Amino acid sequence: MRVQAPVQLRWGDLDAYNHVNNVELMRVLEEARVRVFWRSDDEGGAIDQGMALIEAEPGSETLTLVARHEVEYLAPIAYQREPLDIQLWIGRLGGASLDVSYEVYTHDGATPAARAASTIVLVDAATGAPRRIRAEERQAWERYLEPPVAFSGRR
Amino acid sequence: MRVQAPVQLRWGDLDAYNHVNNVELMRVLEEARVRVFWRSDDEGGAIDQGMALIEAEPGSETLTLVARHEVEYLAPIAYQREPLDIQLWIGRLGGASLDVSYEVYTHDGATPAARAASTIVLVDAATGAPRRIRAEERQAWERYLEPPVAFSGRR
Amino acid sequence: MRVQAPVQLRWGDLDAYNHVNNVELMRVLEEARVRVFWRSDDEGGAIDQGMALIEAEPGSETLTLVARHEVEYLAPIAYQREPLDIQLWIGRLGGASLDVSYEVYTHDGATPAARAASTIVLVDAATGAPRRIRAEERQAWERYLEPPVAFSGRR
Amino acid sequence: MRVQAPVQLRWGDLDAYNHVNNVELMRVLEEARVRVFWRSDDEGGAIDQGMALIEAEPGSETLTLVARHEVEYLAPIAYQREPLDIQLWIGRLGGASLDVSYEVYTHDGATPAARAASTIVLVDAATGAPRRIRAEERQAWERYLEPPVAFSGRR
Repeated sequence: MRVQAPVQLRWGDLDAYNHVNNVELMRVLEEARVRVFWRSDDEGGAIDQGMALIEAEPGSETLTLVARHEVEYLAPIAYQREPLDIQLWIGRLGGASLDVSYEVYTHDGATPAARAASTIVLVDAATGAPRRIRAEERQAWERYLEPPVAFSGRR
Repeated sequence: MRVQAPVQLRWGDLDAYNHVNNVELMRVLEEARVRVFWRSDDEGGAIDQGMALIEAEPGSETLTLVARHEVEYLAPIAYQREPLDIQLWIGRLGGASLDVSYEVYTHDGATPAARAASTIVLVDAATGAPRRIRAEERQAWERYLEPPVAFSGRR
Repeated sequence: MRVQAPVQLRWGDLDAYNHVNNVELMRVLEEARVRVFWRSDDEGGAIDQGMALIEAEPGSETLTLVARHEVEYLAPIAYQREPLDIQLWIGRLGGASLDVSYEVYTHDGATPAARAASTIVLVDAATGAPRRIRAEERQAWERYLEPPVAFSGRR
Repeated sequence: MRVQAPVQLRWGDLDAYNHVNNVELMRVLEEARVRVFWRSDDEGGAIDQGMALIEAEPGSETLTLVARHEVEYLAPIAYQREPLDIQLWIGRLGGASLDVSYEVYTHDGATPAARAASTIVLVDAATGAPRRIRAEERQAWERYLEPPVAFSGRR
């Protein structure tokens, strides 16, 4: 099952080519991921409470560290006032890590403008060592497990 | 009259002190300003159509250049999922420039977490020279004219 | 006495107008300020050891918080490979705060492309309250005291 | 043959975990790539003139677009005043695109803190279509051709 996270663009995401900069799009993916996976106490809440199990702010007992990213840019993205529609799902549930898959849609796009995947490692903040995904996390996250996004440009 | 522009924070706006970085807050103000002042053709539209008269994208006939900023940070801002509420108004309408005043509210804040003002110069893209505010612009913008934000920390 | 801090631009500092974005220039000033004021153990060292008295990283006993910025943009700045030359001095030494003045020079500029000032408050990390500038800090910093940068666009 | 590009960190590259943010590291790689591949007229010059054949600024006849990134983070990077040492080489020379490989070293690191690869497409600015790598470009770039960086985390 996919989760949809709307993330606002900022005009400052544009670079001198007048398109959303490829690095800034990764910032947008980070924001989608934080909103979906991290638990929140505030009103705005997590986009999907079933996925938002991690308390990962500084000071929490778990840190979520990025081990790898892979991203393919399929079409330039212009500034738009409507949020980008970031679709996320879990492409792999490992022992102490998981892979998040993403597709990025503009407000008028029928096909994705980008696809990406990130490997996230759960780290025990006290020891700095990876920690196992817990049974209740695994159970909650399995709903979001789908085949990982497929990349076309790997060599 | 004030205009309210909701702008999403990003977790990446935090710095190593775990608060919204003071520079990133200026990025948020830029976004609020662009959304309010620039005309848009897309669905999301300008927040307030009366203010959004300028076509200021690269390639348009007017550029909006920032001549100055002044900003006071009144309280640290934590990451929150709800958009910040940026309130904007026009503090001064000059010949070829105008001053925008801002107040920044968090979703649970009764008092502003920051206040700021920016001087924006309208520049003719073809000549690079400042160009006069047009009569129809002045007429539309006068509704938003209020006393400029007052700073407490000037020396 | 002024201190000179060379800070590299990044192509990503440009915005869709193909000039260094006004917000990103504040990021450059932040970097100059951190390099000049914060103590460092690494080889690169502080630019001027006399100024670099503060241990202000997260976990240190002092935080340096920005209370206000004021900045005037005098000329657009193009991307250049040579570092910008940021000149800093102390424009005011208060009880628990100080004002930093800046002028920004491009590698071929005879006149500043921007001028700015920031009010920095020293905060006790344990209590969160402002703490007094210490006698040894005041003594070291007095060498860098000059009249504050003068702004032309205040109203 | 590898090219070495020193790129300054900024304190603002840190995130709330007090390490260089994974997205900001991509910004650093972008900067290294621009400095190495793009021709420059200014004094600072390209790091290696043999590689810097492309005039890719807005307004030039070639745009360099990023089609994909892949990056693996091997060790957290703390703020340091000394520039990161980014080592770049060409991992593949295609018809209208090339792959850049990178390794990132901190000033005291014997092993890379990150590895990455980017696919860059040369686009004709007038038509928007990919354009062939020219014979003189291919000849100049072949010196920098080495086996592409190997990723350990692919699935």
